[in-house]
Amino acid sequence: MTSQELTEQIFKKKSFLCVGLDTDLEKIPTYLLSEKDPVFSFNKAIIDATHEYCVAYKPNIAFYEALGVSGWKSLKKTIEYLHSEYPDLYTIADAKRGDIGNTSRMYAKAFFDDLGFDSITVAPYMGKDSVEPFLEFTNKHTILLALTSNEGAFDFQTLKTGDEDLYKKVIKTSRTWENSENLMYVVGATKAEYLADIRKIIPNNFLLVPGVGAQGGSLEEVCKYGLNKDVGLLVNSSRKIIYASDSSNFAEIAAAKAEAMQNQMAVELERL
Amino acid sequence: MTSQELTEQIFKKKSFLCVGLDTDLEKIPTYLLSEKDPVFSFNKAIIDATHEYCVAYKPNIAFYEALGVSGWKSLKKTIEYLHSEYPDLYTIADAKRGDIGNTSRMYAKAFFDDLGFDSITVAPYMGKDSVEPFLEFTNKHTILLALTSNEGAFDFQTLKTGDEDLYKKVIKTSRTWENSENLMYVVGATKAEYLADIRKIIPNNFLLVPGVGAQGGSLEEVCKYGLNKDVGLLVNSSRKIIYASDSSNFAEIAAAKAEAMQNQMAVELERL
Repeated sequence: MTSQELTEQIFKKKSFLCVGLDTDLEKIPTYLLSEKDPVFSFNKAIIDATHEYCVAYKPNIAFYEALGVSGWKSLKKTIEYLHSEYPDLYTIADAKRGDIGNTSRMYAKAFFDDLGFDSITVAPYMGKDSVEPFLEFTNKHTILLALTSNEGAFDFQTLKTGDEDLYKKVIKTSRTWENSENLMYVVGATKAEYLADIRKIIPNNFLLVPGVGAQGGSLEEVCKYGLNKDVGLLVNSSRKIIYASDSSNFAEIAAAKAEAMQNQMAVELERL
Repeated sequence: MTSQELTEQIFKKKSFLCVGLDTDLEKIPTYLLSEKDPVFSFNKAIIDATHEYCVAYKPNIAFYEALGVSGWKSLKKTIEYLHSEYPDLYTIADAKRGDIGNTSRMYAKAFFDDLGFDSITVAPYMGKDSVEPFLEFTNKHTILLALTSNEGAFDFQTLKTGDEDLYKKVIKTSRTWENSENLMYVVGATKAEYLADIRKIIPNNFLLVPGVGAQGGSLEEVCKYGLNKDVGLLVNSSRKIIYASDSSNFAEIAAAKAEAMQNQMAVELERL
């Protein structure tokens, strides 16, 4: 999917919500555990219930990898279900990968070609040749970690390098890389005030914003500093939506939570 | 495995060689492709032939992930084979993971508990709470990317933050984290002269050194600057050993390459 098509979906649905599929066998309703593939059953129910209110789904790969072979099967079923039933939804592999060039190429192949994700999150520490193999893919996005939503973001990301913070240096440098038009950036919602500075460097790129909801970030703040004329935001919520209830109507309640966020987003979009 | 046990193995075998299992269906001998699990068949042949000359194996997870479900099965078979046949060999999941705390914990569980690796490589960009969940595991090591062997290492890792390079700041900061005694560090062989500086900060920690061989680093240089009294080095070679030949005697030739490196290492160890 192109950025333009994603923007069209956002205006059509009046939503820039991304639902994080951080599916954990210890947190899903226990009655699902007797199903053949509880992870897929849970994801399918969440997707069927919430797809009207969001434009993207983001499985965090760690949750699938923790289940080994069966986790990979569940991930594959989930992405195939999205492609066949809801092809207009944008998909993000939250994998935070990055390695030397020939190895990054293997990761890119795994997530873009084999699983068919529209995008993948990538860590910047290893620099240009660790990211460019992801950028080579047409109509795919590489979402670079810039400023993350966790406490540890302040350990290195906000260190001064010369006269600017490392995360700004990462963003600026990444813009010089080949096919940099395929970049999006992760910017944590718990640091919404930083978004104004970031928008000065990258007014047009999409930002994937985690940390609204369970991690305490505010949607209003994110919109105030992060929206651009084409929206340019995907705001993710995982736990606060998918684990809103562990009863048998968990999917309905997840849908209500997603709808509530979509309603807030519709208000923000009217201000554009 | 503890660091002490690893050191004992190194002195016993007169080797600190790690063989990288970057197993790629496009590079293994074509006649193996008719086997049921070509990746495992290749790994088994390489392991059986080289295990006398090395102390560790390091599958790079990207190569397995690129094959989806079947790749995870091959990885699992490989690590189970190592555990059952060669339990004295140290195992490294070269995964370069790192995420917010609850997610890093899922990765740690996947690689330490489920697959039973002795160690995993982890990226530092997200800071303390992204790494500490890995450090909690007893008798397991977390190998933090400090200075990598690729060109892109100079994009961010060697940036000055205050009066020192980012990679030094990463090393120093990581020593303040809980259970930091479980840390090892990745330091690329193509930057051997940096090892002297790094040894001033961490005289005792093990360093995993990629980049000797195909990437052009020199074993002599690495030893000159990197060896400590307990050795403290694991030097990795992947392509130069496992792909030394694509004929039917590829494993024998890989063994000869590994033996040649082991011989060089024995000479270096005698100087201690």
